[in-house]
Amino acid sequence: MAEKLIVIGGTAAGLSAASKAKRVNPELEITVFERSGYISYGACGLPYFVGGMIEQPDDLVSLTVEQMRGKRGIPTYIHHEVTAIDRLNRTVTVVNLDSGETSMYPYDKLVIATGASPIRPKIPGADAEGIYCLRTVEDGICLKAAVQQDGQKQRAAIIGGGFIGLEVAEEMALSGLEVHVFEMMPRLLPFLNEQFSRMVHDELTRHGVHVHTGAAVQAIAEQDGRACGIVTADGGNVPVDFVLMSIGVTPNSALAAMAGLELGFKNAIVVDDEMRTSDPSIWACGDCVQMKNRITGAPCYVPLGTTANKQGRIAGDNIAGAHETFKGVLGSMVTKVFDLYIAATGLSEQQAKDAGYDAAVSLVTKGDRASYYPGSRDNNICLVLDRKTGRLLGAQALGSESVAGRMNVFATAITCGMTVQEINELDLVYSPSVAPVYDPILIAASQAMKKVAR
Amino acid sequence: MAEKLIVIGGTAAGLSAASKAKRVNPELEITVFERSGYISYGACGLPYFVGGMIEQPDDLVSLTVEQMRGKRGIPTYIHHEVTAIDRLNRTVTVVNLDSGETSMYPYDKLVIATGASPIRPKIPGADAEGIYCLRTVEDGICLKAAVQQDGQKQRAAIIGGGFIGLEVAEEMALSGLEVHVFEMMPRLLPFLNEQFSRMVHDELTRHGVHVHTGAAVQAIAEQDGRACGIVTADGGNVPVDFVLMSIGVTPNSALAAMAGLELGFKNAIVVDDEMRTSDPSIWACGDCVQMKNRITGAPCYVPLGTTANKQGRIAGDNIAGAHETFKGVLGSMVTKVFDLYIAATGLSEQQAKDAGYDAAVSLVTKGDRASYYPGSRDNNICLVLDRKTGRLLGAQALGSESVAGRMNVFATAITCGMTVQEINELDLVYSPSVAPVYDPILIAASQAMKKVAR
Repeated sequence: MAEKLIVIGGTAAGLSAASKAKRVNPELEITVFERSGYISYGACGLPYFVGGMIEQPDDLVSLTVEQMRGKRGIPTYIHHEVTAIDRLNRTVTVVNLDSGETSMYPYDKLVIATGASPIRPKIPGADAEGIYCLRTVEDGICLKAAVQQDGQKQRAAIIGGGFIGLEVAEEMALSGLEVHVFEMMPRLLPFLNEQFSRMVHDELTRHGVHVHTGAAVQAIAEQDGRACGIVTADGGNVPVDFVLMSIGVTPNSALAAMAGLELGFKNAIVVDDEMRTSDPSIWACGDCVQMKNRITGAPCYVPLGTTANKQGRIAGDNIAGAHETFKGVLGSMVTKVFDLYIAATGLSEQQAKDAGYDAAVSLVTKGDRASYYPGSRDNNICLVLDRKTGRLLGAQALGSESVAGRMNVFATAITCGMTVQEINELDLVYSPSVAPVYDPILIAASQAMKKVAR
Repeated sequence: MAEKLIVIGGTAAGLSAASKAKRVNPELEITVFERSGYISYGACGLPYFVGGMIEQPDDLVSLTVEQMRGKRGIPTYIHHEVTAIDRLNRTVTVVNLDSGETSMYPYDKLVIATGASPIRPKIPGADAEGIYCLRTVEDGICLKAAVQQDGQKQRAAIIGGGFIGLEVAEEMALSGLEVHVFEMMPRLLPFLNEQFSRMVHDELTRHGVHVHTGAAVQAIAEQDGRACGIVTADGGNVPVDFVLMSIGVTPNSALAAMAGLELGFKNAIVVDDEMRTSDPSIWACGDCVQMKNRITGAPCYVPLGTTANKQGRIAGDNIAGAHETFKGVLGSMVTKVFDLYIAATGLSEQQAKDAGYDAAVSLVTKGDRASYYPGSRDNNICLVLDRKTGRLLGAQALGSESVAGRMNVFATAITCGMTVQEINELDLVYSPSVAPVYDPILIAASQAMKKVAR
């Protein structure tokens, strides 16, 4: 009899696991259950769907249920929630959310790819109407309806100045709304160098976004059950028409916890390097699992689509008999806020110090093409290095789109344990139209060399 | 008495050496002699000066003679040619090209940074009027005058389909000329994968450039002493109004040869890793020296501005007492032809085979951003790897501007000896606006893994 694999969750990690396992072992009988109404959607594109750059929800979807079933041979069900795992009898309880019907499905192997959910703070007014979050396609459809509403100028509050909050702030401002961002910390994106936080702040302000930093939201004011204002700890009260909650996510690990699987950092599911949970028949991957930092080896929780895809693929491969390992995360990321691209990888100064490094920081600003070539824009680069060895530990960059490619060089260099001196010796590409003869990467490394202990 | 350093050549390598040496040891008495009328110019910008995107010759210049003398404390002379080196007495003979006056200057240490000169083929008609090359600012001024001439539509021939030839072809076509490129080899840029050569060819043709491949130029037709046509070996005769010779450069090593210094590959000056010639008092750097390939260690000659700058800096540092070493070249490069960016690093398939590797090639095409994000353009990536170990040996990419940043990741990976499997495990940045969730780098590496021997 064919081995049965059940996959809980039909987005990045779950579908990667299912597809990879099926590719390697076509004999596997795989079933995927997805709680929401969409599978295989690009959640990172949701801000641009809300802003209107991406028109239809289906544009975000790369694989349909029909394609999964037909082309890939993997029966896949939406609106099906797995509500319990019986590890002893190897069954899962599945509720069809459309019909309300409950069924039991047996498994030989199981993948938990339940993702994460937005954190909703327990403050007065948090349950009012007109409060949104942005995680699923359904969330996106609701928020888009609020944003794209005709009539008088809407005022929106975004609680949380992280990446998603800032991406949505951009999209809402471009859609003509009055946008207020509330960030509890004294500055935006506090893992960035302080100067960089200020530049991001300025870029938002320059485009008309109202940024409130050091602004702990104490309550959401209500009128007739609808959110109508943001009350901050310092007594401020900003009237708004609706609210986006964007203060982070928490792993969907309740199902795993109920089944007795081990949880770790921030309640994420503990997995080994092969993505196996504490039950050898159960793998987990994506935004619901604990990861390890690739530099320090310490447990961490950095939910990102890139990681989810990689982990899913590795889980799928291993379910089909391989022994692939996930190497950990650097937390490499990039985003843009209006005309400013923001990229980072590895440890921030504080993270490096917390990890016990004698960390030094070096900052440079350099044009992204030859000074004589039209259209040059600055790349601001911050390197975090170990003063003792000169090893690169982290990097951050702000500027033109080209910071993305440069950040990937730093991510590669960190992965290989390169020192800033070795980075300074790299033979990089050059043409007046895409770089100065000394690439900003080399300038950054060269400056950072001055911080290395002799 | 202060130690005297004479630097022959006032562009990338020479000025880097002089400036670095002075910075480290301000006591040094440094003099720079430059044969042309310009120092410190961005030769790589000349095609864009010819095309008019860069207006004034001075726009290409980053340091003036006055700045060198004043701010940097380094007397610098243009129109001064060093015609002989007397190693026994440690003097150089210098001709003031304006006055014709000859002088002798003593040195304790000497830097030869004489660069390279365009190769002029010995074919009938090669000395006619209306034949240009493009190496110095003066060359650029002459060629620009020919290109930007008013009146009827000019017809230009470019002999040599290398990077500079193609960059100028673009600029001339954009200036409204009828442009013919003649390439002796059966395809353009033959170190690229064959499919890539074809794409470059198509991009040129699409923009109205006439590309003649497999076209050995046998003679330049003349009328009244002026070039008026290109005669090819197959009997073709293409009428043109002027000609750009762009078939490559040869190191300016005659001065070094006369002084008895050792020459190597392609008559380039032999230097050790510290940029010292066979005479311990003489350093050489830039386009006049032999380099070593960073992967194979074999001698090579890859004249590039990036290398010249790095070598100059290292020579200057060592002259001031350091023992810095130049690590060799990967030949990393990027350019653009109309809307197509072309980048490469490391070994081509042929070079890898010639170096004794069991080389495999893997090709992928992938969008440069999330499929649902507007404006995605293809990245075509070709990886050359060692089938036995999986080690990356070379990479080439064609597509949007983003190929430059991606090529730098491959250059870094090659430098660190990474295998394609290790590259596939990199944690790279992702955002729908700058990359798909599986970056083209990862897709390329993942595909290449299939070529590794098991």
